[in-house]
Amino acid sequence: MNSKILIEVARQEGLTLAALRNLISTGRVVLLKNRRHKIKPLAVGERTRVKVNANIGTSPDRVDIELEMEKLRVAIAAGADTVMDLSVGGDVDAIRQEVVANAKVPVGTVPIYQVALEQKKRRHSFSEAKVRDIFRIIEKHLMDGVDFITVHCGVTKKNIEILSRYPRLCGVVSRGGVMMIEWMAKNYRENPLYEYYDELLELAKDYNATLSLGDGLRPGALADATDEAQIRELVTIGELVQRARAAGVQVMVEGPGHIPLDQIQVNVQLEKTVCDGAPFYVLGPLVTDIACGYDHINGAIGGALAAWYGADFLCYVTPSEHLGLPDIEDVRDGVIAARIAAHAADIARRQPGAIAWDHRISKFRAGLKWEEMINSSIDPERARAIFSIQSSHTKGACTMCGEFCAVKKTKETLYGN
Amino acid sequence: MNSKILIEVARQEGLTLAALRNLISTGRVVLLKNRRHKIKPLAVGERTRVKVNANIGTSPDRVDIELEMEKLRVAIAAGADTVMDLSVGGDVDAIRQEVVANAKVPVGTVPIYQVALEQKKRRHSFSEAKVRDIFRIIEKHLMDGVDFITVHCGVTKKNIEILSRYPRLCGVVSRGGVMMIEWMAKNYRENPLYEYYDELLELAKDYNATLSLGDGLRPGALADATDEAQIRELVTIGELVQRARAAGVQVMVEGPGHIPLDQIQVNVQLEKTVCDGAPFYVLGPLVTDIACGYDHINGAIGGALAAWYGADFLCYVTPSEHLGLPDIEDVRDGVIAARIAAHAADIARRQPGAIAWDHRISKFRAGLKWEEMINSSIDPERARAIFSIQSSHTKGACTMCGEFCAVKKTKETLYGN
Repeated sequence: MNSKILIEVARQEGLTLAALRNLISTGRVVLLKNRRHKIKPLAVGERTRVKVNANIGTSPDRVDIELEMEKLRVAIAAGADTVMDLSVGGDVDAIRQEVVANAKVPVGTVPIYQVALEQKKRRHSFSEAKVRDIFRIIEKHLMDGVDFITVHCGVTKKNIEILSRYPRLCGVVSRGGVMMIEWMAKNYRENPLYEYYDELLELAKDYNATLSLGDGLRPGALADATDEAQIRELVTIGELVQRARAAGVQVMVEGPGHIPLDQIQVNVQLEKTVCDGAPFYVLGPLVTDIACGYDHINGAIGGALAAWYGADFLCYVTPSEHLGLPDIEDVRDGVIAARIAAHAADIARRQPGAIAWDHRISKFRAGLKWEEMINSSIDPERARAIFSIQSSHTKGACTMCGEFCAVKKTKETLYGN
Repeated sequence: MNSKILIEVARQEGLTLAALRNLISTGRVVLLKNRRHKIKPLAVGERTRVKVNANIGTSPDRVDIELEMEKLRVAIAAGADTVMDLSVGGDVDAIRQEVVANAKVPVGTVPIYQVALEQKKRRHSFSEAKVRDIFRIIEKHLMDGVDFITVHCGVTKKNIEILSRYPRLCGVVSRGGVMMIEWMAKNYRENPLYEYYDELLELAKDYNATLSLGDGLRPGALADATDEAQIRELVTIGELVQRARAAGVQVMVEGPGHIPLDQIQVNVQLEKTVCDGAPFYVLGPLVTDIACGYDHINGAIGGALAAWYGADFLCYVTPSEHLGLPDIEDVRDGVIAARIAAHAADIARRQPGAIAWDHRISKFRAGLKWEEMINSSIDPERARAIFSIQSSHTKGACTMCGEFCAVKKTKETLYGN
């Protein structure tokens, strides 16, 4: 990495170059960028701004490449820092290449989804995939310029044993996790992503890609949160973090999932200790199981808290979570909700520059400068749509209070203007 | 209160009758119910389920009583525990009476809004209102059966002094607060709701109404959070809580407002200590100023955290906050967002029965019983709309993953069915 780029990254994150170099060298920060992807590297981890990822991609039931490209545009316009292409329907090679070519932000994938898809096309089950099939597809993704890949290396024989002894309410909800379990069960073999982890490290190093160690055993219900299976896998992942660092490979760790409010702090702290400060990439977390149709709000609650406690990277959750594939509006709503959570956490984490945005908007608000307030807010288009429908007859105030506007009155009464 | 009703309330809150009586007698719990309003009393406070309030009401720019009645129906259908009628446009007496007559839940109001409105009709300013005008309207609201009223008694001469010495970024954003300040400034007199607090207590006692001590000096921007003006007012409110209890009047305390994530805990703990455990009724809180159009999400983040730390009652915030008066959809979205926050906090607070709802839904989810999952979720109508648009061709799975459904695979692989 040339130092001109590093200086730029440091500046954006409010760090000195020396501090950034130190955070990178100790693995506290990763720079997402495949050497084949022409983008600015993105810093994820300690002391950097909390980042937001948007998942897009086809499913077997819905393949529309134009729709996915529109999701990509909407996600980035809404402020997503990265995008994961999780396509499992249609020509996934073409889709991925389009996504990488069009994304000016880092792109992530879960290569084994494609392994499963190709097996299916040959009317084979995932468990019939050869180890070389798995690695061939991983390399294909890296050659295509994918910046980070989710690999479920912690789903080992030892770690899944516990699941049959103590069945969970919701079992395994990670698609990648359950694929590996199926493979191991049918082949009576260890997880190849664990067994051949050194080969995986070599591949990642060749492309300067970041491994995102997937939490295949994450809880899919509050009832299963922070249980033995989840923590066993985390401990294994902690070992894999050290091996990646020893091999000079950047690594981050994925986290839950469904976690009650009062267990979020312990989950973040456990990851930070067990995985020696590796960047923590969380899915939500969701703080209740009941919020179908509103899981973006559910995830924003958990995400804000997790990021405040130290999580570094929030995977968005959309309103369609648990119900179906997100559409365009869901993507936008998911990104914005996660960004609100990330920003609230940045403020609490004293991220340089974060609260300045709030001060700017509040100053406009106090000055009744509605147009400027709207233009500076997180989604000016949405804010303007609400404001313009309801524009008030009362000069200087919105329809909420009209002439009883407290801000207006305050100006007149307290400050005499 | 006859003990049959108390037993029922205790049962609903997962308390013994003795525990509930004790919480009420020490002022930790209030029962919202005007003796003239034919409703079941609602318990608010320590060890009870976190409650949610929805604000409705006309503004000078939009008066449509049918719309307000529809908001009332939608708010209650969405699960609001109480409704506040904040009307400041049209025939507010008729609107309030309609709301009380139709609400099977407790109703709150801010009587001085009507004082201001009546002054305006006579082309007078609020500051020209006589003390007897203020008390006449307060009594009118109580006679109409209003169960709780917001009274800005803590906005005293001493407490507002500080505002001119240390101007805030957003000044005073409470409509009631700024009205009292204007009145005091023009009349060179103490706040009449403070000066004649004993009379207020007598009135409340007559109707068994609950006083909600308004936070007229709450912060309207993160920059102003937890500042001297806010805390001074809270200390005064703490004294007023003791005087109310001594007079046998039920009282709760209103709280902020705009508060960064890392100041929410101290705000809740301060209220609980300074106000000797009085139920805490918070507006949001909002954890950032930038989320115009999405302040229901913003408020859900702050509300979940506040309620987990001990706040008892969440006033919803809608997507139209800071932009205009909420419409029907905004009301629904606001109530659901606040309910998600309240429920997440109930789980973390170990409220009896709270997490059972999550377990029930997760059991349906694990069993791929989509219809049952949707019917049990927080808004079945919304969940069904998303699910049915996208129903999958893959038997037993939704479109998100289709045949790669992890839940389905888990059943097949781990549990053999």
